[in-house]
Amino acid sequence: MEKFYITIGREYGSGGRLIGQQVAKELNIAFYDRELIVLAARESGFAEEFVQKMEQKRTISFINNLYMTGYELPVSEKIFLAQSKVIQKVAEEGSCVIVGRCADYVLRDKPNCFKVFIHAPIEERIKRIREEYKEDQSNLEDYIRKQDKNRASYYNYYTHKKWGRAQNYHLCIDSSIGISTAVRMIKELVTEYSKR
Amino acid sequence: MEKFYITIGREYGSGGRLIGQQVAKELNIAFYDRELIVLAARESGFAEEFVQKMEQKRTISFINNLYMTGYELPVSEKIFLAQSKVIQKVAEEGSCVIVGRCADYVLRDKPNCFKVFIHAPIEERIKRIREEYKEDQSNLEDYIRKQDKNRASYYNYYTHKKWGRAQNYHLCIDSSIGISTAVRMIKELVTEYSKR
Repeated sequence: MEKFYITIGREYGSGGRLIGQQVAKELNIAFYDRELIVLAARESGFAEEFVQKMEQKRTISFINNLYMTGYELPVSEKIFLAQSKVIQKVAEEGSCVIVGRCADYVLRDKPNCFKVFIHAPIEERIKRIREEYKEDQSNLEDYIRKQDKNRASYYNYYTHKKWGRAQNYHLCIDSSIGISTAVRMIKELVTEYSKR
Repeated sequence: MEKFYITIGREYGSGGRLIGQQVAKELNIAFYDRELIVLAARESGFAEEFVQKMEQKRTISFINNLYMTGYELPVSEKIFLAQSKVIQKVAEEGSCVIVGRCADYVLRDKPNCFKVFIHAPIEERIKRIREEYKEDQSNLEDYIRKQDKNRASYYNYYTHKKWGRAQNYHLCIDSSIGISTAVRMIKELVTEYSKR
């Protein structure tokens, strides 16, 4: 198989990032996540911190952005375009795993793009975030749901599709079946295609 | 592992039924699909043909049904309850695969209930239906979308959840990755749990 791409959408705290890292490691291909922001920031000339802040703030502030920038493209749109350019650039360089950033949408015309979505029951995610991320939010459930809401509105806005709708992905996995099982299934997905 | 259940929701023409049959065969457990209607019809005293007709007609005809039956439970609700009883009964009898009929919802309190959703791109489904089902509808795409709509509204109405939303299932698979791969992944899901 020529170059291939695994894009991973994920609920907050579902272990999607961890799964992506492991898949990339086992397949010996590149892995991109927050690094993308850094690259995108460089490309577009925005300071990294500012880009991150905009990302966090983003719900559907299109109107607000329009007002801020007059007739120019809104800031958040510029950031999205810059990130999309980065995604396309790293995809040109070689096979990779990309977590988040609507990469499935950005690479939608690539023939070997495998789209994965990872989710988990809320109790498992609270547990993971408490143990692994050392988050000290008083109400973790509210916090998690808010993060998911942000991810969903970001995805829905830019892709015009529905975040977490099974039909948008080749494989959706509840990570409570085990991180290593999820990793194995994603690798199987790629292997099966490569046989064709 | 004690008794276990694999419930399969599926888009029309996605091969979900075929996958379910194959999983049941390889795991040597029972398989239920349309047979459920027959059993449900017997249990409730409805003629099989009538039950099937009601099933096909069902969109959200709650009001209509209420009008038909006065203060009694609407006919379609009675059928759903009868089918739910059958699902619970066969689940008591032993491990099984159940395709459709909101079985994931009916068996939601069972600890070993693995929820799967199968879908596929529309072109693949048109191809499958044309070849395997010998359907002679003039506009197959419209026909398929209508079947999906019926399934979605049936599921959403009875379960108060969203049909095809990844988070409702342990595993959602695009069957264009291959029937045998899908079968293997579902078996892997069960095997992993049984190790715990």
